[in-house]
Amino acid sequence: MNRLYFDHASTTKLDARVLKQMMPYLENNYGNANSTHFFGRQAVKGLDEARELVASLIGAKFGEVYFTSGGTECDNWALCGLLKGENKGRLVISSIEHSAMLNTAKSLENNGTQVFYVKPDKNGFINAFDFNEKVDKNTVCALMLANNEIGTIQPVREVALLAKQKGAIIYSDAVQAMPALNVNAYDLGVDMLGFSAHKFNGPKGVGCAFIKNGVKIAPYISGGHQERSLRGGTSNVAGAIGLAYALKYTRESLEKDANYVADLRNDFIDKVLSQIPNARLNGSKDNRLPNNANIMFEGINGDALLYQLDINGVSASLGAACSAGSIEPSHVLKEIGLTDSQAFSSLRFTFGKDNTQSEIDFAVTILKDCVLKLRNK
Amino acid sequence: MNRLYFDHASTTKLDARVLKQMMPYLENNYGNANSTHFFGRQAVKGLDEARELVASLIGAKFGEVYFTSGGTECDNWALCGLLKGENKGRLVISSIEHSAMLNTAKSLENNGTQVFYVKPDKNGFINAFDFNEKVDKNTVCALMLANNEIGTIQPVREVALLAKQKGAIIYSDAVQAMPALNVNAYDLGVDMLGFSAHKFNGPKGVGCAFIKNGVKIAPYISGGHQERSLRGGTSNVAGAIGLAYALKYTRESLEKDANYVADLRNDFIDKVLSQIPNARLNGSKDNRLPNNANIMFEGINGDALLYQLDINGVSASLGAACSAGSIEPSHVLKEIGLTDSQAFSSLRFTFGKDNTQSEIDFAVTILKDCVLKLRNK
Repeated sequence: MNRLYFDHASTTKLDARVLKQMMPYLENNYGNANSTHFFGRQAVKGLDEARELVASLIGAKFGEVYFTSGGTECDNWALCGLLKGENKGRLVISSIEHSAMLNTAKSLENNGTQVFYVKPDKNGFINAFDFNEKVDKNTVCALMLANNEIGTIQPVREVALLAKQKGAIIYSDAVQAMPALNVNAYDLGVDMLGFSAHKFNGPKGVGCAFIKNGVKIAPYISGGHQERSLRGGTSNVAGAIGLAYALKYTRESLEKDANYVADLRNDFIDKVLSQIPNARLNGSKDNRLPNNANIMFEGINGDALLYQLDINGVSASLGAACSAGSIEPSHVLKEIGLTDSQAFSSLRFTFGKDNTQSEIDFAVTILKDCVLKLRNK
Repeated sequence: MNRLYFDHASTTKLDARVLKQMMPYLENNYGNANSTHFFGRQAVKGLDEARELVASLIGAKFGEVYFTSGGTECDNWALCGLLKGENKGRLVISSIEHSAMLNTAKSLENNGTQVFYVKPDKNGFINAFDFNEKVDKNTVCALMLANNEIGTIQPVREVALLAKQKGAIIYSDAVQAMPALNVNAYDLGVDMLGFSAHKFNGPKGVGCAFIKNGVKIAPYISGGHQERSLRGGTSNVAGAIGLAYALKYTRESLEKDANYVADLRNDFIDKVLSQIPNARLNGSKDNRLPNNANIMFEGINGDALLYQLDINGVSASLGAACSAGSIEPSHVLKEIGLTDSQAFSSLRFTFGKDNTQSEIDFAVTILKDCVLKLRNK
């Protein structure tokens, strides 16, 4: 069966060119980057190359790039590490962050940190001034650059600008934004950014944080002197190289790919909304990641629809993959005003540069068929 | 130049057979193991296979195996997660643990946990009864299975037996032991074990924890519902498969390799001690990991010796690679009674199954030459 993959926000295929860059570090250069001998220097060379490349791509300095095990670790590190390192007692965070952020926030709240949640409007956007109202100099702010479920791009630059005026610190989870936007850490004005390689055709198990020089952060994975003594654990050099080259290749065709994918996505949305009754786009159509469509099919059980699509070869998602196994409705959809039942009737389709127009057309036909069948049951 | 690698405790080369097992998950099966569609199921299949294999190799149940980003994460998770999950307020830990443990312990101590450090004897062994004296039912115990610097194998089974009688919980860092010992989690009697793939010819960036059914542990990397909701972050399936097969291949020739490496190591020690004046083995000769030699060269600057060896093609280590960049003498060597100066005069040589007798002979010659030259300076 020809399988259509419309779940790129969940993960992406490792680019063959990226794997090729990783291979020397998987096959031969196996040293520990913390060793001072020849084998260690080979590893350091790879790690330096990766760090240099990432720094140049995100507009950071070499020493501001830190490798981690992924976006989730970055999120945990950012909240716990910045509150502790900067000696802040207050967290202001959007209510539509990824569960890696919200679960960490909840845990901090249980331990005495004051946490304020800022809600989005019905289109899925956080208002910078609403956010700023809760911020004081004792605050760590957390606002994702783009939402993982509905793709809305948040006013991080504005929030950062206002936060800095008050002496607050700001972290942005850029996991979903990095594959599609030309993110520049300094332009954005944040103190820390986190992102993950496997969202832009890099390997799984490796992430990266930008931490601005001068920002104080406590280690979260504590151990040896790796990553300027801020992140222990033997460096995953192949992973770091993979992340760096994946970002490089992504950036090389960013605009072209974004336009191509947005065209497919727009066509998909137009066809679905015009051909399937009682279907509605969740979140704004504008200022949205180019590859994201999140659609509510009134009266449909999303799980059942997902299953029907899957047996017909179409892979989509019921929101965040990380929430699979959850019996709760999507917190993001609820925050933008959907009822539980509407949230459970919504599916996320996220496209990639390898998807084609004929895949879109096929998927619309299948989707229409499945929705009508389920409604007639 | 022919380079000799005698730093296997630091890291090891990825086994080509392991890489081959990983390749399908690097090239084609790229799904997110938390996705419920076809691509997700492909990933789950790999993750299940890896978990099943690890479970069978360490005598655990399928659901007791958790994948992490490495040994350091396991150590951080164990201490923080068990104290919180089991609601314990006291930590009893050996004073010769890896820095990932000791730094975490220090951080917990700063936050109000009572921490007791148990010292080893001059041979590098923790006494189980000494350890037990500090343990009560409110305790999490932490004792490494084998030391990373001097290779001494610790009485974890005895400590576990005594700890369980008191209702305490016990974690063992098995990072160094796993490559050489036939570790069985239930035989050992611990509640939790941690280890890392790259120490036994697996990939970097992936580790594993055994957590006994019924043991309560709080997540450390908190996020989605991965790893039974105890470890968030998109599963690194290629890494998990790599870890599992690396352990399988290691176990297949464990005894043969251990005997071979022990013979090389013993020959190395004998020759060094007999041919180089004022050289002494640090730690016990018995009950020691088969590949470890840690030797003090009286009056020598270890850094200078390491450099001389390196330019002659011999790669060794000044203790833990994770401590490279540190200007402190080895805490392990100090705990077994060495002076600062003696600790700074000590090098660690750790051998592997690919090392040969002629490499040993060559290294002894070089070592003798370097030591004598440095002493005559």
